[in-house]
Amino acid sequence: MTHTDGSTICAIATPPGGALGIIRVSGTKATETVDKFFRPAKGSPFPQRKGGTATFGTIVDGNEVLDEVVVTLFRAPHSYTGEDTVEISCHGSEYIMSRALQLLIANDGCRMAQPGEYTLRAFLNGKIDLSQAEAVADVIASTSKAAHDVAIKQMRGGFSHKLKGLQEKLLHLTSLMELELDFSDHEELEFADRRELKSLCLEIETEISRLCDSFTIGNAMKNGIPVAIVGETNTGKSTLLNVLLNDDKAIVSDIKGTTRDIIEDTASIGGVMFRFIDTAGIRETNDKVECMGIAKTFKAIEQASIVLLMLDASTAMFQWTELADKVLPLCKDKQVIVAFNKSDLIAEGHEALIGKLIPDGLTTIFISAKGKKNIPALKQLIMQASSLNQVSDEDVIVTNTRHLNALRLSLGCIKRVNEGLDANIPTDLVSQDLRECIYHLSDIAGEVTTDAVLGNIFEHFCIGK
Amino acid sequence: MTHTDGSTICAIATPPGGALGIIRVSGTKATETVDKFFRPAKGSPFPQRKGGTATFGTIVDGNEVLDEVVVTLFRAPHSYTGEDTVEISCHGSEYIMSRALQLLIANDGCRMAQPGEYTLRAFLNGKIDLSQAEAVADVIASTSKAAHDVAIKQMRGGFSHKLKGLQEKLLHLTSLMELELDFSDHEELEFADRRELKSLCLEIETEISRLCDSFTIGNAMKNGIPVAIVGETNTGKSTLLNVLLNDDKAIVSDIKGTTRDIIEDTASIGGVMFRFIDTAGIRETNDKVECMGIAKTFKAIEQASIVLLMLDASTAMFQWTELADKVLPLCKDKQVIVAFNKSDLIAEGHEALIGKLIPDGLTTIFISAKGKKNIPALKQLIMQASSLNQVSDEDVIVTNTRHLNALRLSLGCIKRVNEGLDANIPTDLVSQDLRECIYHLSDIAGEVTTDAVLGNIFEHFCIGK
Repeated sequence: MTHTDGSTICAIATPPGGALGIIRVSGTKATETVDKFFRPAKGSPFPQRKGGTATFGTIVDGNEVLDEVVVTLFRAPHSYTGEDTVEISCHGSEYIMSRALQLLIANDGCRMAQPGEYTLRAFLNGKIDLSQAEAVADVIASTSKAAHDVAIKQMRGGFSHKLKGLQEKLLHLTSLMELELDFSDHEELEFADRRELKSLCLEIETEISRLCDSFTIGNAMKNGIPVAIVGETNTGKSTLLNVLLNDDKAIVSDIKGTTRDIIEDTASIGGVMFRFIDTAGIRETNDKVECMGIAKTFKAIEQASIVLLMLDASTAMFQWTELADKVLPLCKDKQVIVAFNKSDLIAEGHEALIGKLIPDGLTTIFISAKGKKNIPALKQLIMQASSLNQVSDEDVIVTNTRHLNALRLSLGCIKRVNEGLDANIPTDLVSQDLRECIYHLSDIAGEVTTDAVLGNIFEHFCIGK
Repeated sequence: MTHTDGSTICAIATPPGGALGIIRVSGTKATETVDKFFRPAKGSPFPQRKGGTATFGTIVDGNEVLDEVVVTLFRAPHSYTGEDTVEISCHGSEYIMSRALQLLIANDGCRMAQPGEYTLRAFLNGKIDLSQAEAVADVIASTSKAAHDVAIKQMRGGFSHKLKGLQEKLLHLTSLMELELDFSDHEELEFADRRELKSLCLEIETEISRLCDSFTIGNAMKNGIPVAIVGETNTGKSTLLNVLLNDDKAIVSDIKGTTRDIIEDTASIGGVMFRFIDTAGIRETNDKVECMGIAKTFKAIEQASIVLLMLDASTAMFQWTELADKVLPLCKDKQVIVAFNKSDLIAEGHEALIGKLIPDGLTTIFISAKGKKNIPALKQLIMQASSLNQVSDEDVIVTNTRHLNALRLSLGCIKRVNEGLDANIPTDLVSQDLRECIYHLSDIAGEVTTDAVLGNIFEHFCIGK
């Protein structure tokens, strides 16, 4: 990828098959290139138009009219990329979009954009920092409220702001250290400063450490929280799964009015994405097939954050002990919800009897998947178990592995600074680690990032963004 | 479908999965509705903006920022629908688009658009006539140059213009008849007028008849011209098919940079869509399977406009007679091209020997599918056989079955007018057929079309158009 070749780039920014199609052109020659085949229906010639205006007209190839379009012009620096940008809104025909693109790239200095190149240019032109640029791809890919919220906050600079705060503290720490160096002859001053240094240093370590820890939650928000549904086949696992999934699907298809490939096992509950892993029956016979099924179930439990243990309420009295013995030992670091299904089939007072079987501290609920009884309450329990409800709106959540790596490196540095202060290592030696800590944090915003890293980041973007 | 309920409509106009997504809002409350959740980044409040301007800002749900967007405003009547229209360009995330749509339809008087409702409104508001509105769907669906050219001409009013000309001639004819009625006592006048009437009437009949005839070509342009490839399995039919298709595919994927489901058997040659029908071997054994294969081949030939008869050049001397006897009798109204494949394997002078076998008048070509020899020449022959190259750029082509039906009905009427004039039937009786002829032509432009017909036309549109 050539980052600063000065060329004008173009790409189709919308998939084929819609009512409208958008072609984006960005670069110094954007206006002049589009002017070659765009004819405004009336008014002044296209290059004389003001930024932020939309013009109706036709795109032509010689005498042939290709389409009636609306062309919107954005003048540098008031555009997404910070360059002159033209957006051509044509009919959503693949044929028209291809032809228009051919008309564009037939011009010298205009070429097809690489994936993510618009956002890359926005970064290179100082419109956004690198962590914001990376969030753009996350915003587009988000399918749940939680994932979207994190991504949009990051895109709008929430994470950048947090990092700036940390960097300021680190710079303050550096200046204090330099002050200490200057006054190193005065013993009484040295001790006072060391306490302040130490306190500031711990504060920074705590903050970076919290950011690192947030990655687990961030990853769950982005990719869905894994929930293993464990229980016998006839306990109604599939029915429950359908109830949980279909609610979600119905909303989606209602709004879109179009069909799509459904990923059968993810559902959004309360705006959070959950990945439901249906497992084979945990009990059955002692044959080989069962062993394989159980092995898979154990694997699913291992991967899950939440285990939904399902029993048939009408036979739970006989099943509980064996199931609990097999499953609960595997769930030590998991959230467990015990759901008794078919609760509409049991006699009154039976619930209390079953309840006595269950050890204290386990969350239990009586539901009917078929009768859709208590499903909202179950969803509430799943939400609570996800522990995402403990995340405040103000918290910055890390979702990106590159950021996590940089944060972990800077955490290592600040820990060494801390240890150095404890061990009374001379300040000028400690400050080397401090500088390294700042360096790693700067890497997240792209202040010290190499071309190779940039290429790696943007090649995963879609074309046209 | 409610046509004139005065509501403001909204829809997602681009498929999910792109860099950008467009949401369209149209109706008297479009500006006021969008103003409720769109916050311009700077400058005057949104409702005070001028038509034809694009505004950067955020869409918000209460305090929550949903996305950073560009909102373009079109003031009535200077919009696609002729109403106030707002286009929201957001990130191409299904989640964001769904949320934005929910924010819109939460407002009184704003609802989801029906398929084609934007274009329907453009028609109802007099921006375009019905034949132009119908062409919009064709423009979006066009995948070849020929189909696109016909659709875009129709959308831009080429067909409407032609119909207007015909209607003017018919009105002129009517006025001449009324003149004749007024002067019916003067015998010498009557005869002169009858000749003029007759001549005008024949002219109109010829024009309507030509339009009806153009449907065969129009249909071929729209849906692809069927080409049956007939020959033994080892003659290289599949290789040829791949050569013809892959050229096309390579271009498409090169331009789009995305994948899609390929319809394996259509290819665009010289801008015209051809549907290639690969057939089972025509000769083999006499068993049941062969009979089924041959039956299918005969069916393919029946459906085809062009039959591409393929022989292995190295064995053609022994195959020709039997193959010709079987296939040629089925091709009486078809264009036949005889292609000798593997021509690189035969000795010099062999081509002339084979040529002597072939009856005069049959088009023959020597090719090598594997070696890609003479493929451009073969494509040229296929293009010529399509007879689309005889269509002038000025010709109006009918592609729509509804139009064909209306044209056929008006043709019937004008023929009766002609017959009436021949039979010296009184002018006032003939003029009834004349009025009916005008009525059917008016139906094409939607001047006399009922709501039921409109509903039927627009329900086949995509949502957002």
